[in-house]
Amino acid sequence: MTLLADTLEAVRPLDASAMADARERQDRLTKPRGSLGVLEDISVQLAGLAGRCPPPMPEPAAVAVFAGDHGVHAQGVTPWPQEVTVQMVANFLAGGAVVNAAAVQVGAEVCVVDVGVAAALEPVPGLLPRKVRAGTDDMTDGPAMARDEALRALETGIEVARDLANAGNRMLLTGDMGIANTTAAAALIAVLTGADPAEVTGRGTGVDDATWTRKVEVVRRALALHQLDPADPVGVVAAVGGLEHAATAGFLLGAAALRVPVLLDGVTAAAAALVAQALAPDVTGTLVAGHLSVEPGARPALDRLGLRPLVDLDLRLGEGSGALLALPLVQVAVRVLRDVSSFDGAGVADKDAAGGPSASGRVQ
Amino acid sequence: MTLLADTLEAVRPLDASAMADARERQDRLTKPRGSLGVLEDISVQLAGLAGRCPPPMPEPAAVAVFAGDHGVHAQGVTPWPQEVTVQMVANFLAGGAVVNAAAVQVGAEVCVVDVGVAAALEPVPGLLPRKVRAGTDDMTDGPAMARDEALRALETGIEVARDLANAGNRMLLTGDMGIANTTAAAALIAVLTGADPAEVTGRGTGVDDATWTRKVEVVRRALALHQLDPADPVGVVAAVGGLEHAATAGFLLGAAALRVPVLLDGVTAAAAALVAQALAPDVTGTLVAGHLSVEPGARPALDRLGLRPLVDLDLRLGEGSGALLALPLVQVAVRVLRDVSSFDGAGVADKDAAGGPSASGRVQ
Repeated sequence: MTLLADTLEAVRPLDASAMADARERQDRLTKPRGSLGVLEDISVQLAGLAGRCPPPMPEPAAVAVFAGDHGVHAQGVTPWPQEVTVQMVANFLAGGAVVNAAAVQVGAEVCVVDVGVAAALEPVPGLLPRKVRAGTDDMTDGPAMARDEALRALETGIEVARDLANAGNRMLLTGDMGIANTTAAAALIAVLTGADPAEVTGRGTGVDDATWTRKVEVVRRALALHQLDPADPVGVVAAVGGLEHAATAGFLLGAAALRVPVLLDGVTAAAAALVAQALAPDVTGTLVAGHLSVEPGARPALDRLGLRPLVDLDLRLGEGSGALLALPLVQVAVRVLRDVSSFDGAGVADKDAAGGPSASGRVQ
Repeated sequence: MTLLADTLEAVRPLDASAMADARERQDRLTKPRGSLGVLEDISVQLAGLAGRCPPPMPEPAAVAVFAGDHGVHAQGVTPWPQEVTVQMVANFLAGGAVVNAAAVQVGAEVCVVDVGVAAALEPVPGLLPRKVRAGTDDMTDGPAMARDEALRALETGIEVARDLANAGNRMLLTGDMGIANTTAAAALIAVLTGADPAEVTGRGTGVDDATWTRKVEVVRRALALHQLDPADPVGVVAAVGGLEHAATAGFLLGAAALRVPVLLDGVTAAAAALVAQALAPDVTGTLVAGHLSVEPGARPALDRLGLRPLVDLDLRLGEGSGALLALPLVQVAVRVLRDVSSFDGAGVADKDAAGGPSASGRVQ
């Protein structure tokens, strides 16, 4: 068996018994039933993932920022020079980017993974050198990468998840850096959801109308060239994906195999999650959508994954910023399930309890 | 001058110069312009409030949970017995409620203020004894409280804000506890926004259809009885408000006078903010809406206040829970403005800079 095959085999459904325990426990806490809305659902999901109630606190946490470059950049899909990928990687490693500020504020570690930057990077602390190749090829000319390279990127992501979990992390977050990677994300989402490229291609970090129109046409040409089968997700990500998309998909699968929850960042993560879902449908039980990106592909991708985003603040940055913003929400959800007193324990009357004060009719 | 009059006098507009500095600084940070969406707006607002850029970090933070009882409870507007107010206050003080778990997770202090609980409370650490009266009267029979009592509750809130700011807090959060207080909130929002009671009356902590219908009729009867003038917010809150609504309104005004930002929790806070806005329109510059409550009055109230909620997760708990969830988001917003490197400083190419790499046309 390969690492990928072993990992896919280990991705299993959520534990229904632990989830039932969590629902029952939520209903005994000193609050109106259901009054914590989506946070109650998250706590139940994480109990199902852990196989026990309450689940462990999702901390410490680490965000893995997968960085790669894109041959399709040559098609003029973005106003940013490709060199910005390596410049921003240096910025992450110097602690100067948004992902660093957000991670410091919410208490998460930042780990930068060079899975495909089109330049040689100096070894520095915080950088994992895992380059599969120096950027992809142009998807409008041929496959972005070879199938074997996509498999290596997937397995790289699995290994990063395993290493971060072995280091003690109990919550993983996705991050990404790669100029032009929203073009690859749009192509992946179009293939894996069946949406038209115009519906799922966005303005990325900010492109004008002419560039957006070109970007949609680039995605259309790539899809017409490759005639992809959504039932072959490795083939799909090799043809039109990025190295960071493939590695992120592996990261999600690796976390799922180890029953460690993952917070997804924006559209790059959502596209990668579709690849992972096509390989192992139960991976979605591991995933929490951190936020809803402005990118139009994010919504159909999250819908297909069955995930509701926790934060919706018009973000379109990437790097892991949206996942980091959602981290405290997930931590509060689990802490409430773990620590809040029950009606019985706190001596608070429960309107829904049989024979309790409300059943006596005193209120009416 | 009274404390209230002095406070209203001290509520001033945001500083336009500091806001312009913050916008300009945001545009130089190493991220696409505008890519942090609403978080950029929050950072600009807080710079305007502080009168400098970057503004101070909004920490440490404290949530003030104003507790009161409601004479309108006698009208059968909730299935919960009135005693749950005092039971939950005891739960807060024992550290067993959702507000405690959330505050521990996000790093905020919890301060419980008895401004109107209908029972004598034992002195314990963490409880501020500021009872104006032991619960309100039934708004369908006459005014909930005397005008003088409403003024005392407002000034109590001002003093709590001042004391928490003097203790070093740089961010304040609202919280509330009071069985039946969504009935008072609905009445306040109906008067101060002009909405029909049926549009702004909700199911609170969970009422059935018959109780909801009764609750709407109770609000209608109260409004018909009092014939209130929205231009007299003290009269409005005295007639149909709660002691926690009046105190929370004062809390917002007190914070505004000291230029300390406040995160609003749910519909109780939104109703109180309308009272504060009617007294001093510039108070809204101090306010950030923590979340959008399920209560239908929340949306029209926030619209009137001009506030966009940061979190929308189907919460309907109160206590300060929704404000606490938003605290890390505000802190990240300010930390980004303060700490992230500029394009120049980090050696990252800026597509929008005159003469920068993109201007050279290399991408196209």
